Amino acid sequence: MSRSEATIPASAVTAFAVILAGGGGTRLWPSSRRARPKQLLTLGGSESLLAAAVRRARAVVGLERTLVVTAADQEKQIRAAVPALPAANVIAEPTPRNTAPAVGLGAVAAARRAGPDAVIAVLPADPFIGDDREYERLLRAAIAEARETIVTIGITPTRAETGFGYIHLGSPTGARPHGARVHDVGAFVEKPDRATAEAYVASKSYLWNSGMFFLTARRMFEEARRHLPALADVLDAAVAAPDEAAAAAVVRARYAEAPSISIDNGIMERAGGLRVLPGDFGWNDVGSWAAVAAIRPADDRGNVVLGGATLVDGEGSLVIADEGAPFVGVVGVKDLVVVATKDAVLVVPKSRAQDVKKIVEAAKKSGRHDLL
Amino acid sequence: MSRSEATIPASAVTAFAVILAGGGGTRLWPSSRRARPKQLLTLGGSESLLAAAVRRARAVVGLERTLVVTAADQEKQIRAAVPALPAANVIAEPTPRNTAPAVGLGAVAAARRAGPDAVIAVLPADPFIGDDREYERLLRAAIAEARETIVTIGITPTRAETGFGYIHLGSPTGARPHGARVHDVGAFVEKPDRATAEAYVASKSYLWNSGMFFLTARRMFEEARRHLPALADVLDAAVAAPDEAAAAAVVRARYAEAPSISIDNGIMERAGGLRVLPGDFGWNDVGSWAAVAAIRPADDRGNVVLGGATLVDGEGSLVIADEGAPFVGVVGVKDLVVVATKDAVLVVPKSRAQDVKKIVEAAKKSGRHDLL
Repeated sequence: MSRSEATIPASAVTAFAVILAGGGGTRLWPSSRRARPKQLLTLGGSESLLAAAVRRARAVVGLERTLVVTAADQEKQIRAAVPALPAANVIAEPTPRNTAPAVGLGAVAAARRAGPDAVIAVLPADPFIGDDREYERLLRAAIAEARETIVTIGITPTRAETGFGYIHLGSPTGARPHGARVHDVGAFVEKPDRATAEAYVASKSYLWNSGMFFLTARRMFEEARRHLPALADVLDAAVAAPDEAAAAAVVRARYAEAPSISIDNGIMERAGGLRVLPGDFGWNDVGSWAAVAAIRPADDRGNVVLGGATLVDGEGSLVIADEGAPFVGVVGVKDLVVVATKDAVLVVPKSRAQDVKKIVEAAKKSGRHDLL
Repeated sequence: MSRSEATIPASAVTAFAVILAGGGGTRLWPSSRRARPKQLLTLGGSESLLAAAVRRARAVVGLERTLVVTAADQEKQIRAAVPALPAANVIAEPTPRNTAPAVGLGAVAAARRAGPDAVIAVLPADPFIGDDREYERLLRAAIAEARETIVTIGITPTRAETGFGYIHLGSPTGARPHGARVHDVGAFVEKPDRATAEAYVASKSYLWNSGMFFLTARRMFEEARRHLPALADVLDAAVAAPDEAAAAAVVRARYAEAPSISIDNGIMERAGGLRVLPGDFGWNDVGSWAAVAAIRPADDRGNVVLGGATLVDGEGSLVIADEGAPFVGVVGVKDLVVVATKDAVLVVPKSRAQDVKKIVEAAKKSGRHDLL
């Protein structure tokens, strides 16, 4: 047990991390694919986004209580990517059902091991975190608060982003767990247009919805019963199963009955009494290649060059040669993204990094399903 | 014998094409390499530049009198690229000695087969020719004139190019072989600076030096005797050899004695009485990727996409995926060159296409000799 694991006495609260690692997505194509999802990429760092998420969770809840929920077709790679994790801590959805049922599986595992008062910290696997210490402090604070109600961490916005949902801050509760501020949640609001996003940021009373949620397993089952009863039926049956094999059999047999809905839409936006902790720890959702450029050290002309690519006379550009990629030579470009893998090359201006999907669509249309 | 071969009666002049195909060069890297020189590239066309050069020469002098001089380490690929050519018509330099000695080898072959009054048409293998008919007309005109003196074809400039040598037009001779104009050569002038190039083009009395020369084998030997005696010794001995095997043995044994010098510097700029025919037949030296973009059909936004690459929302760009290259997806770029081969990717603004050499140097420095 590391020093940081010791900072939360087990007597106070038993917490599990439920790391959601089932995502696909093509925003980091060609590096990310269905067969190599974003959370498994290192993006020029020393560990994958998932390995980093597991490392941070371990520091707070311990490795034995770090769970990873993933999709069946990604299970093998996920296990290989975090070999130190106990085998039973990687939980594969029998069939894809979005994040509400996936969180349910984590809650079942936590409740079966430590009882329904165990707190689960629901953590997406794929954001980048710049300040691990601050992040871990907020995790401890949110876990402490989660004994009472559902807690989320909202990210203090650094720009008028239109690609995220926001959380409107309600009144402060006065609590200061681990020094963190705690507010009631005013409301979850959908992705805003540009002007609205700017108003949100200027008001200082909106945070980005990070998708991190903290609640007891019991609360998860109660909310599922209220809002997603078909899911609750499956979860309750799994919790009630006499042993792990029987619980797994219930999930295998009945998981498909659960509705396919996100934890945000299915539970969080419908539940009452939520609290939010503002967090500021270099969170980056790595939602595009432009974001990757922002999380890695740049040279004095703002270039980020990863994986042995060669850039001459560049400015503000991101050039990546993945393992097995051809030699990549780029000269004289400005604000450009060039990413090469062994079977595909992407070239796109940084300002149009979201348009990678147009290339993915083109590859799909031309029958190159091997590239998706 | 085709109709066009018949237009020059053998009784009038026996002419050989001496196609110089020994070049290396990295200006079209990564497609061109030492092991895959520019003249072997198709650049999105249906035939390699060399195959096109052979095809045009054949139309004028016949296949039997079309010779290709190449470097020993390129001989095998050159033969494979023009399989219809008689085996004896591919002549490999035993060791690299630049173009003056290479032309000498062509002159030896012509003289041994048809006597020293045979005309040799010295033709670089790697320019692109847009108008084959007009080019072939000029070839016939230059060959006809070459019975009397050394003739060159100068290209009517279409821009103030600083990368070429120029030929200053002297007085017209009044001759109109095949309808072509003939001038004395005023002077060969070196690559000019920008302002000088602009003045040249404005004056209409300068032509680009195309490196095409026409002269009898006898004249070649005489000029070599005068200006490059060590070369003349080798050529004379090869011409005097009793049979082809003996001639080949002379070349093998003594070619290294010849100085390494270009036909331009070694002979043409030193010889007297030269004539020049202005030519205008869509000549393009394909000296950079920007030039490649100019010789292939563009879409209505000025993009040239070759080899199955995918370009979305591009403008004025050249995107090439060579055989065996990864899938190439480019979106939203302007005036950019992207070239992928199976082992290398180049990205460079069209305006900086000459800077590909910086990448080649970088590859060299990092020990990637396989990419050169």
